[in-house]
Amino acid sequence: MQRSLCLLLLTLIFTMMQPNELPADEGLWLFNNPPKEHLKKKYNFDAPQAWYDHLQKSSVRFNSGGSGSFISADGLVMTNHHVGLTALQRLTGVVNKDIKDPAKKKDFAKDGFYAKTLEEEFKSIDEELNVLIEITDVTARVKAAVTKDMKPEEAFEARRGVIAKIEAEAAKATKDNDYRADVVTLYQGGQYHLYKYKRYTDVRLVMAPEQQVAFFGGDPDNFAYPRYDLDMCFFRVYENGKPAKIEHFLKWSKNGVSDDELVFVSGHPGHTDRLNTVADLEYNRDVRYPYALQRLNRLEVMLSIYSQRGADHERKAKDNLFGVANSRKAYYWGLEGLQDAAVMNKKKAQEKALKDAVAKNAELKDLASAWKTIEGIQKVRAANAKRYNLLEAGHGFNTPLFGYARTLVRAAEELPKPNEKRLQEFGDSGQETLKLKLFSKRAFDKDFETAKLGDSLGWFAEMLGYKDPLVQKVLAGKSPNVRAFDLINGTKLFDPEVRKKLYEGGKEAVDASKDPLILLAKAIDPDARKLRKVLENGYAEPNEQAYDKIAQAKFAIEGASNYPDATFTLRLSFGPVKSYVEAGKKIPFQTTFEGLYAKNELEKNRAPFDLPQQWIDKKNKLNLKTPFNFVCTADIIGGNSGSPVVNRAGEVVGLIFDGNIQSLVWDFVYTDEQARAVAVNSQSIPEALRAIYEAEPLAQEIVSGARK
Amino acid sequence: MQRSLCLLLLTLIFTMMQPNELPADEGLWLFNNPPKEHLKKKYNFDAPQAWYDHLQKSSVRFNSGGSGSFISADGLVMTNHHVGLTALQRLTGVVNKDIKDPAKKKDFAKDGFYAKTLEEEFKSIDEELNVLIEITDVTARVKAAVTKDMKPEEAFEARRGVIAKIEAEAAKATKDNDYRADVVTLYQGGQYHLYKYKRYTDVRLVMAPEQQVAFFGGDPDNFAYPRYDLDMCFFRVYENGKPAKIEHFLKWSKNGVSDDELVFVSGHPGHTDRLNTVADLEYNRDVRYPYALQRLNRLEVMLSIYSQRGADHERKAKDNLFGVANSRKAYYWGLEGLQDAAVMNKKKAQEKALKDAVAKNAELKDLASAWKTIEGIQKVRAANAKRYNLLEAGHGFNTPLFGYARTLVRAAEELPKPNEKRLQEFGDSGQETLKLKLFSKRAFDKDFETAKLGDSLGWFAEMLGYKDPLVQKVLAGKSPNVRAFDLINGTKLFDPEVRKKLYEGGKEAVDASKDPLILLAKAIDPDARKLRKVLENGYAEPNEQAYDKIAQAKFAIEGASNYPDATFTLRLSFGPVKSYVEAGKKIPFQTTFEGLYAKNELEKNRAPFDLPQQWIDKKNKLNLKTPFNFVCTADIIGGNSGSPVVNRAGEVVGLIFDGNIQSLVWDFVYTDEQARAVAVNSQSIPEALRAIYEAEPLAQEIVSGARK
Repeated sequence: MQRSLCLLLLTLIFTMMQPNELPADEGLWLFNNPPKEHLKKKYNFDAPQAWYDHLQKSSVRFNSGGSGSFISADGLVMTNHHVGLTALQRLTGVVNKDIKDPAKKKDFAKDGFYAKTLEEEFKSIDEELNVLIEITDVTARVKAAVTKDMKPEEAFEARRGVIAKIEAEAAKATKDNDYRADVVTLYQGGQYHLYKYKRYTDVRLVMAPEQQVAFFGGDPDNFAYPRYDLDMCFFRVYENGKPAKIEHFLKWSKNGVSDDELVFVSGHPGHTDRLNTVADLEYNRDVRYPYALQRLNRLEVMLSIYSQRGADHERKAKDNLFGVANSRKAYYWGLEGLQDAAVMNKKKAQEKALKDAVAKNAELKDLASAWKTIEGIQKVRAANAKRYNLLEAGHGFNTPLFGYARTLVRAAEELPKPNEKRLQEFGDSGQETLKLKLFSKRAFDKDFETAKLGDSLGWFAEMLGYKDPLVQKVLAGKSPNVRAFDLINGTKLFDPEVRKKLYEGGKEAVDASKDPLILLAKAIDPDARKLRKVLENGYAEPNEQAYDKIAQAKFAIEGASNYPDATFTLRLSFGPVKSYVEAGKKIPFQTTFEGLYAKNELEKNRAPFDLPQQWIDKKNKLNLKTPFNFVCTADIIGGNSGSPVVNRAGEVVGLIFDGNIQSLVWDFVYTDEQARAVAVNSQSIPEALRAIYEAEPLAQEIVSGARK
Repeated sequence: MQRSLCLLLLTLIFTMMQPNELPADEGLWLFNNPPKEHLKKKYNFDAPQAWYDHLQKSSVRFNSGGSGSFISADGLVMTNHHVGLTALQRLTGVVNKDIKDPAKKKDFAKDGFYAKTLEEEFKSIDEELNVLIEITDVTARVKAAVTKDMKPEEAFEARRGVIAKIEAEAAKATKDNDYRADVVTLYQGGQYHLYKYKRYTDVRLVMAPEQQVAFFGGDPDNFAYPRYDLDMCFFRVYENGKPAKIEHFLKWSKNGVSDDELVFVSGHPGHTDRLNTVADLEYNRDVRYPYALQRLNRLEVMLSIYSQRGADHERKAKDNLFGVANSRKAYYWGLEGLQDAAVMNKKKAQEKALKDAVAKNAELKDLASAWKTIEGIQKVRAANAKRYNLLEAGHGFNTPLFGYARTLVRAAEELPKPNEKRLQEFGDSGQETLKLKLFSKRAFDKDFETAKLGDSLGWFAEMLGYKDPLVQKVLAGKSPNVRAFDLINGTKLFDPEVRKKLYEGGKEAVDASKDPLILLAKAIDPDARKLRKVLENGYAEPNEQAYDKIAQAKFAIEGASNYPDATFTLRLSFGPVKSYVEAGKKIPFQTTFEGLYAKNELEKNRAPFDLPQQWIDKKNKLNLKTPFNFVCTADIIGGNSGSPVVNRAGEVVGLIFDGNIQSLVWDFVYTDEQARAVAVNSQSIPEALRAIYEAEPLAQEIVSGARK
């Protein structure tokens, strides 16, 4: 029944996208260009610049791929359980290392964690948080470096050079490692902004609930609504061994949200394809999505059956499995949207309108070629993308240990070069982040790494074709899983000290190494680099130039009412809290704890609708009428997980953790008939902390904005 | 640890295939050509022909894809739980139709079933059992119909014609519907035999244990050993409403097996690729297996997440999910073997030896071209196979309802033609079986059929490419899941009466039908038929002729010491019960109930190592020392599931249900260093029936060979 309902809705959403009377609240807006006019006109919202600045500096990026916010003066950070999952799992791995009895092993990801005192707060492995401090427009300087007569490879080099230089200058201007500076490409090359971030690398775990209640409903309810998930996790940032003193943090709202109330979301949407041309979307539909889905299906099966082997296996694979299943679902329904003729026809009509407007305007005639260019380079992409993914993106070598090997091999070659001549990821500005990852103390499990690597070597052989000389080189006469067994059992790269020595020893040390993973990374590096160049020159560079033209055209015709596609940098979105109609039935804008228990009882506590034991035991301590989850029309996408939802006063009213299934088309087109962002209501958080987790001090800090 | 061990073993098995001193006990032997000489020489086994005839006529084929045997004079049939799974699930569907309260719904596949009296025995839906009664060699007649000067399409038509004629004559010679006659192609076209079967269509369910104990260890233990599975299921065949009187049935052994004891397996291996040339195996490695694996991964994810939605969903998907996961594991490790250079090198050496011998013998020079021919036609296969699978094999339309639609559309066209001009499946000899399936009373679930069809339409679009005109035709402007929703909600083919009316109404009725599935089947039929012809003429026919030559060459050089590849027809295999060494550790030839409980306790009753409640409650009633599972070297493959294992006296000592992971290379090469068939020990069956299931009458019938 549930599924049928779903499908009915898809029909509606895919065929009934009609313009609103007022412009829709679409947009992943830059903090230095928020849609103030629209907000004033439509919502009579007219906040001073300081309102925006405060929200910006209270927002946090989890470099592992998520968003968060400061919610106390003592460095308390709020995000989702599923954003904290990697950290929870790494801590589990480190703690279990010293526990011999299998019955006593911990599983923080599954069972949750709560530090009653500062002393009990747990330092996360490799977690880096960034706070955006300053934005500078450097478009003119970057564009000046690229001249019209340059060949693609020259243009690419020139742009890379000037960007590395700008970043290096900015890095030098700061006194220590606590800052980083990135040049961000916006509007697919239409603008370049220099982002200065404050870095926090001492990030400690404060509290996480059980995964059962954070991810209640599991895969069936993922991207669904109504929902009942306490998808929250709290960290604290430290400086010099003490909780960091934070100037900009968000105040808490005790009132939650009401129907139709305007709310704002501040977070780091990862990637969208809104500006994409039809040819580009067709490539996604015909090549990128199907490949991604095939790979994710394979990974999901591998990780699921690995998990079945025992409780220990389940623990090891949990984080990977969650991520893979989540992506699989997003790709599946995204592709379903791309395969809907109504969606593509709408995109075609929009594109035609823009092209027609360009054709009519003599001043824009230089821009008219962009669509043809983009159509043409899809062939380069199609011819090389699979090989690139396998070789350069590492789909064929699915273990972080191979990533270490490659980083070491390349660092030995790249670091001696001048900054602006290096591969982008070896630039001076990213050095500290790179070393943080490379020298990580996280624990690896031989068996799990073997399973992942073995499976991906099989994928590599199947995708490239067994007879490909590169496959022969990689497998070295062994079958994929046997080869992986040899590689993982032979490598010493598990040990951070070994990695450090190789890194510091430079080319000489790396050349002398007999480590089988180093040898493998070396053996395929010429091919991987060649492929990267082919795609950079034949696709990425002309792509950037062509989209620059389209962005210019859009700007010329539509004015400044515009936002760039998502780039995992800070954005502001907004929209009302809003119920919607599904198959003739009104879906209320919020749920309560009462609904959680009703669903649990309906499904007889059967996984994934089961509850942690203490939630059953302490049910009568909870105010069951407390609002739990709600939906709003704010424009979000993957990466926004953990974003705070604030009201007009800038107070936290919610915590974004998902979108509904209708929102899965937001990757390439925004609609607000039924598509919604899904959030945890701010009222449910202190309520659950007090009634279930007996975490009064934390609840108190959240509500008051400071530790007692 | 378990996995690492596994890998170590794979290295061993794949690199250490060395000849035994005596010839290995390889072979899927025809009952009219058993290896009597070898058995006499190696095992001093010299049974009269009557011994073979009795075993043949006691053996049963489950047309749904498995094996079994008669074990009482009153029609009692023994097979595996996983062979009976489809029947168990269909019964569940039919029974649940009339149960409104979800809490009262049955799940026979999960919870098992036991009919205490004949009245309680449950008639299975669409189950057809066949018993091989007579074999006639018709090679000369079939080969005479094909002359050297014929074009491939003429040769194909001539062969199809003469086969249809032989089958029709044989069918006419029997008085009623209780028999069927099939011409079986052996040695890939080297020989043709006419098989006459007795058909049983009133097949009733007698007893099945819980799936938990039948499939204890689930996917992790599937294809593994040591094992602890009670993978059994009992049916009874009826004639004229009464238990059929059976002349040939197997006696029961109370003694089970001892180490090194010679045993025999009689069953229906489905498909092997032993005779395959290297070019053919490379095609399998590079094209067939990767495609199959990708499709199975996708299906497994779809069915798994469907199952998670609730207990009802899990029940509906169980049978499909089991089959898909089982195939996925077989393909995965089969492909791992094909990707091992050592395996392929062995095959290359064998092929070279045979080719060299042919080259040296002037009388065989006509046969020398066969290998080149087979190499050449792999291109036809590669160019058409994917499209064929999607369109003609139905991978793009994954619901039996589409199968009905196509059968109706084609029956309307084919049946008016003369018998020998029809598509093979519409020949006179198969009419009754076809109608049994088409008019089936099985219950379908709209939601489940929509989910499967929707997912497969997506697969269809991704694999053919969205822009393919056929994809456009099939999707009709909708996205895949929306299109599936429309098709399933619009069709009336759920109703067997509707199907019957369309079938009996012939072309006129089908042409007039507006049923959306009929319209879809009609729309793609010209393309599907065209593709089938291309593959029949460009691949199947030259393939059959070339393998005929290779079989002749093998026969000329090696003599009659030969058996044909598996064809889901009755075969005899044999070998000793035998322990083996894995990573330096001896794996004992049999396990006991004690081991089952030990494993269950080690894994703390965590799924898939959990036990049904009554197995825990009644543990002290069981003799824990009873042998449970054992291994032997008998040559088996998928389709052998449910085969009886008999001793020299022809008594049942076991019930085949699996092979270990090392046996997964048996598809293309037999080895017996470590590869083993896995069986339930005959002693454990009455013991469990008595102690756990309180099924004394059934235990009594099994042991005594008749109902009391």
